[in-house]
Amino acid sequence: MQDNPLEQLANTLNSDMRSVDKLIVSYMQSDVPLIPKLAEYLISAGGKRIRPLLTLASTAMFDGDMSKSYYLAAAVEFIHSATLLHDDVVDKSDERRGKKTANLVFGNQASVLVGDFLFSKSFQMMVESGSLELLKILSNASAIIAQGEVLQLSTTNDISTNMPAYLEVIEGKTAALFAASCEVGAVISDQDNATITAMRDYGMLLGTAFQIIDDALDYSADQEKLGKEIGDDFREGKMTAPTIFALENASDDEREFWQRTLGYKDQTDTDFGKAMELIARHNALEKTIDLAKDYALKSTQNLDILPDSEIKSLLCDITDYTITRSF
Amino acid sequence: MQDNPLEQLANTLNSDMRSVDKLIVSYMQSDVPLIPKLAEYLISAGGKRIRPLLTLASTAMFDGDMSKSYYLAAAVEFIHSATLLHDDVVDKSDERRGKKTANLVFGNQASVLVGDFLFSKSFQMMVESGSLELLKILSNASAIIAQGEVLQLSTTNDISTNMPAYLEVIEGKTAALFAASCEVGAVISDQDNATITAMRDYGMLLGTAFQIIDDALDYSADQEKLGKEIGDDFREGKMTAPTIFALENASDDEREFWQRTLGYKDQTDTDFGKAMELIARHNALEKTIDLAKDYALKSTQNLDILPDSEIKSLLCDITDYTITRSF
Repeated sequence: MQDNPLEQLANTLNSDMRSVDKLIVSYMQSDVPLIPKLAEYLISAGGKRIRPLLTLASTAMFDGDMSKSYYLAAAVEFIHSATLLHDDVVDKSDERRGKKTANLVFGNQASVLVGDFLFSKSFQMMVESGSLELLKILSNASAIIAQGEVLQLSTTNDISTNMPAYLEVIEGKTAALFAASCEVGAVISDQDNATITAMRDYGMLLGTAFQIIDDALDYSADQEKLGKEIGDDFREGKMTAPTIFALENASDDEREFWQRTLGYKDQTDTDFGKAMELIARHNALEKTIDLAKDYALKSTQNLDILPDSEIKSLLCDITDYTITRSF
Repeated sequence: MQDNPLEQLANTLNSDMRSVDKLIVSYMQSDVPLIPKLAEYLISAGGKRIRPLLTLASTAMFDGDMSKSYYLAAAVEFIHSATLLHDDVVDKSDERRGKKTANLVFGNQASVLVGDFLFSKSFQMMVESGSLELLKILSNASAIIAQGEVLQLSTTNDISTNMPAYLEVIEGKTAALFAASCEVGAVISDQDNATITAMRDYGMLLGTAFQIIDDALDYSADQEKLGKEIGDDFREGKMTAPTIFALENASDDEREFWQRTLGYKDQTDTDFGKAMELIARHNALEKTIDLAKDYALKSTQNLDILPDSEIKSLLCDITDYTITRSF
């Protein structure tokens, strides 16, 4: 594998990313000290910053107004951060990006409320962009994210959850914001509808591939590299591609196992190992990765209509990288 | 006391309120059944709908475009509803408006996520209003609300919380949305800056009076009429006007009592009765109500510059009603 293309893109857009970072830091300030403290804990913990990078890249690729894109890139990162804070409360997670989660350090209450603050601030930044069209794209994405999260809650512990329901969840909770991050860049740059649609679809399919791989890693990753415990989805009874594939041709005994462990969350210490065995027996990880590859391929095909450029080629590389990352 | 002026205003604006209700119902729909189910449980439970009424009244009073105000009135109610859902999770409340809270019926996870959904939907509605100026007012208000909620979290269980800190909390968590609800009506109607400021200040001071009375009722109301248990603030160790006044001239023993019960939340069954006694001894409820009256008086003074009208007079009555309500 070549150098990480996300880092290459971040280098190419280095001064733009620094402008975005400045906005992020300035919008997380507040007279109430707990707010910047918690926000900084989460946001400065790093993360891949992939969503704001996509917004900057989509704008730069079309020679759009970069100063407008800074607000949107920061807004997108705030929406993502607010979602993470609320997710970790909902999932009762205790580790993210190799650190204790904010809810564990600052409490669930603070995480819920600071999430609301960041979410409000993201809208303030969008208003600064001065465009109702952009606000519409991002407010729609926010509603779809929340809907995807609720759908995920409804499918958790339900082993009858099928592939279409799973894909609807991840298109909502993850892919919609990837799609919006890319779409707004094309809109800022006054591209035609075909280009705007191509960028949105690129982002949507990339985000889907990204989340499918994320779900595969929860059953296969090197824990230290991943920055969180593996097996979280199993312990919570979340229905993701690996378990859905393993359940497709499950024997009665196996189905009983999944019902007990995922459905009733009645788990012993050896159950995660057993789950990994069943996933291997049914080639469920391979199937999951193939599914992600399908999405990745379709994602980059959307870029075919665009003129060649350094950024276009990096966007293709990012998609490839997404499905080969091992952490 | 005369008839409830809120109901009079709702009657006057009856067909407008029905248009707002239609928007509310339509924007809470989703393919994910849990969303309308939970949203309906909360929103159809009634509540006073005071915020959307203020938006409609502020628009109608200036002959503004009512169809625009429907979106904003519904948006304001959604922001409020999202806040309630998250508040009840944060406060671990179990009763609101005479019913079990949504978090008790549907769980904390669903309440957090459906709150996020309603919040996103409120922004979709604001975008429909087609005005960046209105979006700015309401996104600012949202950020201030969240900040007020976090500040409240920081002052809870801290018996050194003083009156300015308390007022900052309630101006954030309650009054800012009252202010925005009134301000947007004047903005829709293209009023001059003095009028816009007058309406915003009317709302801000009304909201402050409203919340101060709410906090008084938590130590004095008829539980059945109030629709929730009294003593919630005491049990959570929330610092509100009655306890802050009672602490002002507290003896060492009394201060020790407040430190144990509010500060350390170490409470026995008889402590709430003891708290009520101390509040009575220091005339803290009377002082609280006087404080609310001050705000109410200043609130209506803002309307002096406006021409007389039926709605103006009802807005004055609502302020008076706010400080005399006993439930």
